[in-house]
Amino acid sequence: MKRRAEARPRGFFLVVEGADASGKTTLARRLAIAYRQQGWTVTSVREPGGTRLSESVRRILLDPKALVNPRSELFLYLAARAQLVGDVINPALRRGEFVIADRFSLSTLAYQVGGRGLPARAVMAADRLARAELNPDLTILLTVTEGQSRLRRQENPCPPDRIEREPASFFRAVRAEYLKLSRRMSGLIVVDSSIGADDVYVCATEHIDRRLKRRRPSSWIRH
Amino acid sequence: MKRRAEARPRGFFLVVEGADASGKTTLARRLAIAYRQQGWTVTSVREPGGTRLSESVRRILLDPKALVNPRSELFLYLAARAQLVGDVINPALRRGEFVIADRFSLSTLAYQVGGRGLPARAVMAADRLARAELNPDLTILLTVTEGQSRLRRQENPCPPDRIEREPASFFRAVRAEYLKLSRRMSGLIVVDSSIGADDVYVCATEHIDRRLKRRRPSSWIRH
Repeated sequence: MKRRAEARPRGFFLVVEGADASGKTTLARRLAIAYRQQGWTVTSVREPGGTRLSESVRRILLDPKALVNPRSELFLYLAARAQLVGDVINPALRRGEFVIADRFSLSTLAYQVGGRGLPARAVMAADRLARAELNPDLTILLTVTEGQSRLRRQENPCPPDRIEREPASFFRAVRAEYLKLSRRMSGLIVVDSSIGADDVYVCATEHIDRRLKRRRPSSWIRH
Repeated sequence: MKRRAEARPRGFFLVVEGADASGKTTLARRLAIAYRQQGWTVTSVREPGGTRLSESVRRILLDPKALVNPRSELFLYLAARAQLVGDVINPALRRGEFVIADRFSLSTLAYQVGGRGLPARAVMAADRLARAELNPDLTILLTVTEGQSRLRRQENPCPPDRIEREPASFFRAVRAEYLKLSRRMSGLIVVDSSIGADDVYVCATEHIDRRLKRRRPSSWIRH
């Protein structure tokens, strides 16, 4: 089985994670441009979204008027993820593409366990089922302080969605969970976003390139 | 803890289960009328549905044009269930009402595990999280043969939804899973729907009344 998996062309699955206003969307965009210039076909996705079903779910989730309890919220995010993995991420990886996801499983832990207080073990098991056991090749987690996060949010001209309307205590719990995860999870690259967008970008590409070099003999270079 | 739970007023949670066209909706309606006449406040729910969010999810799930993969389908059903339990079923039970649900967790096992082939243990764990560990006081499972089911479906004047468009093999797998569950799960009342709607109704009320009598000293009669 292992040999067969290695012989198949397979892309690279990068996840950019972090609390709201940590700069992940900016980083994901710059990385997409950079790796496209290096000859990769890049598929960029954001959660929740990316498929017709996931966008319908996104509308329910972010509607400021929606009544969504924490368990229902969890399962809506997982439904959107399951469809995105099945329809977009896995097919792109099988075609050998570079997939960049703005949020993935770590967000579920930070927001639904840290922010909403759902039980970690049950949430992790459900998430494993949603992503059909797909794992990222690399996750970059951008950390952000409360002050920076508030500042960036104030600069955002769009009206806040349902999640953005949560009180400061919610976002504090989310950030604390991200920090906890950054200490506990292996294979996670943690970058302090206060070093500025340019340095975050340089730091991210260094880590990605190192990871790409390391996996070259075993997988993606063969196709 | 136990004593406190017993002292609280608590209603009765009845679930009516079965494959498509097994007669569960007819039975649920007759039972609602009967127990209302006996003085109960009856709350009837159907899955997926019953809350604003769950009805939005229902529209996605039953849309014949929707592309929904098996995992995404599971999580959409669970999102609808989580919201229904939190907003409707649990509050009604706390008010001491008689809640009749047309489908609940057993449908998830029959359709998503039996029909779609998802792993049973992971699905059961996710369902437990969705219903916040709420258990029915009684589940009545109506069995139906392939021939009866096909006949009743032909009599239905409405155009088929996404699930109803599945091939015969899917419904065969669902019915087989219900049968398997009926042998394995305890506390489940299995009624062969071929005895006719009147006899199914009589049989159901006998079981319900026996269960109500048995639990009287411990819970619902106290309020």
